[in-house]
Amino acid sequence: MKIAIAQLNYHIGNFELNTYKIIDCISKSKAAGADLVVFSELSVTGYYPHDLLERKEFVEQSYKAIGQIADCCTGIAAIVGGPSINPEPRGKKLFNSAFFMYDGKIQQTVNKSLLPTYDIFDEYRHFEPNKQFSVFDFCGKKLAITICEDLWDEQETQNEFGREKLYQLSPLKELSVLNPELVINLSASPFSYNQENSRKNILIKNAIKYQLPILYVNQVGAQTELVFDGGSFFLDKNGIIQEELNYFEEDFRIIDTEIPSGNLQPKTETIEKIHHALVLGIRDYFTKMGFKKATLGLSGGIDSALVLVLAVEALGKENVRVLLMPSRFSSDHSVNDALQLAENLGIQYETIPIQPMVDSFEQSLSEVFAGLSSDVAEENIQARTRGILLMAISNKFGNILLNTTNKSECAVGYGTLYGDMNGGLSVLGDVYKTDVFKMARWINRDQEIIPENSILKPPSAELRPDQKDTDSLPDYDMLDQILFDYIELNLSPEEIIARGFDEATVLRTVRMVNNNEYKRFQAPPIIRVSSKAFGFGRRIPLVAIYS
Amino acid sequence: MKIAIAQLNYHIGNFELNTYKIIDCISKSKAAGADLVVFSELSVTGYYPHDLLERKEFVEQSYKAIGQIADCCTGIAAIVGGPSINPEPRGKKLFNSAFFMYDGKIQQTVNKSLLPTYDIFDEYRHFEPNKQFSVFDFCGKKLAITICEDLWDEQETQNEFGREKLYQLSPLKELSVLNPELVINLSASPFSYNQENSRKNILIKNAIKYQLPILYVNQVGAQTELVFDGGSFFLDKNGIIQEELNYFEEDFRIIDTEIPSGNLQPKTETIEKIHHALVLGIRDYFTKMGFKKATLGLSGGIDSALVLVLAVEALGKENVRVLLMPSRFSSDHSVNDALQLAENLGIQYETIPIQPMVDSFEQSLSEVFAGLSSDVAEENIQARTRGILLMAISNKFGNILLNTTNKSECAVGYGTLYGDMNGGLSVLGDVYKTDVFKMARWINRDQEIIPENSILKPPSAELRPDQKDTDSLPDYDMLDQILFDYIELNLSPEEIIARGFDEATVLRTVRMVNNNEYKRFQAPPIIRVSSKAFGFGRRIPLVAIYS
Repeated sequence: MKIAIAQLNYHIGNFELNTYKIIDCISKSKAAGADLVVFSELSVTGYYPHDLLERKEFVEQSYKAIGQIADCCTGIAAIVGGPSINPEPRGKKLFNSAFFMYDGKIQQTVNKSLLPTYDIFDEYRHFEPNKQFSVFDFCGKKLAITICEDLWDEQETQNEFGREKLYQLSPLKELSVLNPELVINLSASPFSYNQENSRKNILIKNAIKYQLPILYVNQVGAQTELVFDGGSFFLDKNGIIQEELNYFEEDFRIIDTEIPSGNLQPKTETIEKIHHALVLGIRDYFTKMGFKKATLGLSGGIDSALVLVLAVEALGKENVRVLLMPSRFSSDHSVNDALQLAENLGIQYETIPIQPMVDSFEQSLSEVFAGLSSDVAEENIQARTRGILLMAISNKFGNILLNTTNKSECAVGYGTLYGDMNGGLSVLGDVYKTDVFKMARWINRDQEIIPENSILKPPSAELRPDQKDTDSLPDYDMLDQILFDYIELNLSPEEIIARGFDEATVLRTVRMVNNNEYKRFQAPPIIRVSSKAFGFGRRIPLVAIYS
Repeated sequence: MKIAIAQLNYHIGNFELNTYKIIDCISKSKAAGADLVVFSELSVTGYYPHDLLERKEFVEQSYKAIGQIADCCTGIAAIVGGPSINPEPRGKKLFNSAFFMYDGKIQQTVNKSLLPTYDIFDEYRHFEPNKQFSVFDFCGKKLAITICEDLWDEQETQNEFGREKLYQLSPLKELSVLNPELVINLSASPFSYNQENSRKNILIKNAIKYQLPILYVNQVGAQTELVFDGGSFFLDKNGIIQEELNYFEEDFRIIDTEIPSGNLQPKTETIEKIHHALVLGIRDYFTKMGFKKATLGLSGGIDSALVLVLAVEALGKENVRVLLMPSRFSSDHSVNDALQLAENLGIQYETIPIQPMVDSFEQSLSEVFAGLSSDVAEENIQARTRGILLMAISNKFGNILLNTTNKSECAVGYGTLYGDMNGGLSVLGDVYKTDVFKMARWINRDQEIIPENSILKPPSAELRPDQKDTDSLPDYDMLDQILFDYIELNLSPEEIIARGFDEATVLRTVRMVNNNEYKRFQAPPIIRVSSKAFGFGRRIPLVAIYS
């Protein structure tokens, strides 16, 4: 059987665009002689529509789109993902479904059984789980359709709940007794650099266990915080990958289920993948929001330098303009490094010293602050003055402000709310400082784009004389390991100390993370590249005592 | 049987405090001759701990607390809520449980069956649902324990999913065949002014249907966005309320299940209840976060006036200080109204005109903005300058900034991000402007506290000469009705138009709501008083096309 794999970038709720892309791919598949074309999970709506699924008109539009797509399935079959209405009187209103279309009609509707409801997933909120299983014949083959998590009933290793088996049910076990010959899996699996192998391993394990070939079709493209990386693949019944599609871009491929091909993607370094994820994250945020231009504050430090490079890659240098906003605490080299980078990249920049505005604030507050010594209040005035200037550029010229805070800072609250925490999108909020350095080195692999001095000098917020990040934070190498253990691995402080870290440093770090929930509550959306990013996938109560 | 009802205010994760309160209530109940004392859902942890439930040390601490409480149950029984570990190898790690303790030991553990996963509820994320039902004997009576949503299998009216039966299972139906004589329900039901009757009606319906008395014990107190209003009650088997506890405060009451008492709470106006919810919301946010003092900007308008009155009630006038920050567009009456209010309340205020800072920004930006006319960029500089000044006060003196944006503004994006949208807590973010007026009138019911002029004058942001809210927004009476239909009732634009509203106005309003998701993404936590507040209970994707 010849199957076309349609790995597309959908726009949530943009039924016109999604339907157009799907129908276009059906035509292309038919022209190329495919018997069947497979799209990813919830392809017609884009993954994940959240509470838009509660709007009647949203579900109606989805049905209308599904009908239009089915009309086009003549001489070819298609499997398309979308919500379907639960006909039963009890239970949630919708299923997360795959529609098998042929002869201009929906022939089969298969509903998802395992609804992930951890980390960034929220599917049980909107969908009723399926409990009935069936296979069907097409082109002389018995097909079993599954949807994403349906194949994840056994996790590769213990998940964060400390359990290998998160679900009561095993859909593939149920299906296997019906003797399918091919398993098709419609997916929407977001990228995370520290789980990149487990997705393949889960599916390989299933293929071998049930001796069944599996076709896995993933979504590609970014949806606010989530980056879907594509990399759809076809596994033979021995769990060997026979076809693998591109990562971080749309792709289309036709496979013959009977003829091994062995078309694999080249291996890529982790830091390079994170880079691609961030560029796609920025580009899709802008494209899908209807924005074109970005701005950011360039300090001469490594974080803003890296964000600028990524923004220029994503949007083009003509669409990015930066502000240099030196204060009396800015070192000469900072200003020079910033200027050098702006010139290396050939982008528009302006310099606005912040001292006049800072003076004006301090002057106006002098009576209220009389007799009190300078502290974080004055430091924050500097950061917030920069925030106002950047938002003024944004409001005047329509350039969306990119936030440059990295994950280490975001974790310990090393940033000023309504100051350097401003922005429409946080580019590095899920990238630890040590990875920021790695990525800067990777960007400079062939030539010096980011000034070497920005990489080499000790990190500093430059809000007071001779300030260094290490004045108030542990060394980033150690800090990032402790943070990773606490945030990604969900280890307790005791467990982290038992791994050989200094007790006082661990407790102080954990305290900083917990004491800054209130800042992260108001942070911009963060492009997620890890298995546990700040944002929607990490729900910690704000008003609480943390153990 | 004599049962003590313990309606307490818990602090999430504060096991020391929660355990102390629970044990104290057990002693008190024993001293008063009660056979049993009943606490609310997840009482030992506080409702709702969210992803703290994924931390091993959190669950361990909870078990330890439960053990300490069980030790104290000699000569009296207690029912306490807390998480329990699922002993089965499949499924989520935890149950949401009620522990029945007696003779110094846990005698029964009953698990929750129906796990709400809509609006602000997220229980399926952390808990495995129970599917086994049993009753047990105590004091010669067969008791059935249920937890909150367990009695909500049939909704009073169609819920937002358009369904009366959200669940497959009916726990009370299962239990009823075991012939219980009393149903106990441990709850954590948050207040919402437009659902205030449905909670009672659901339970009354159940009591009558199964001819069973029901004891309903609710949590009280605010947890960030949610306000739990208490109002625990005891229903006889005919569905008649025989005992009703206080609203919006801790309460403790002993009932005799055999002797009708008819102790009901007096009827209260809706606007008064919202008022009490907001005061409790502010007070608990401060108390539980360890804060004492608040600040806010007083404009002379109705919103900041109302927030100030509420803050003074919640925290005491000695703990609130305000800033008046007039600009060249501020009218004399605004400044006078603000001064009058500050003096009526006897609170500390300072006046800092913003013009010097605004001038400084405009001067510094003059080259970049050369040749361009004044627009929203300049308006926002004013709002953001005020935001910086308030945060400077907050940082210098430790006064937490209260946000004064109302729900109508929040809905249509009539506010400046990093300006007047700043704050640690949004007090009015779930109160429509028309209700702001109602509450101001209610506050002035005996004497003029809020200057009459603040209530009477047409609302204005005063960011340009002679600006009025109605220049860019529909009249608030109409606006709020459209917003309520769209947000609370989840009606489609077509349905709202069919109710008799002008088509262009409806479409413009809906567009404004949808175009401002990005602002609300970064808004402070909002005290929730309605059935659909902006925040955790309303999850709309940021990057999307809205139908």
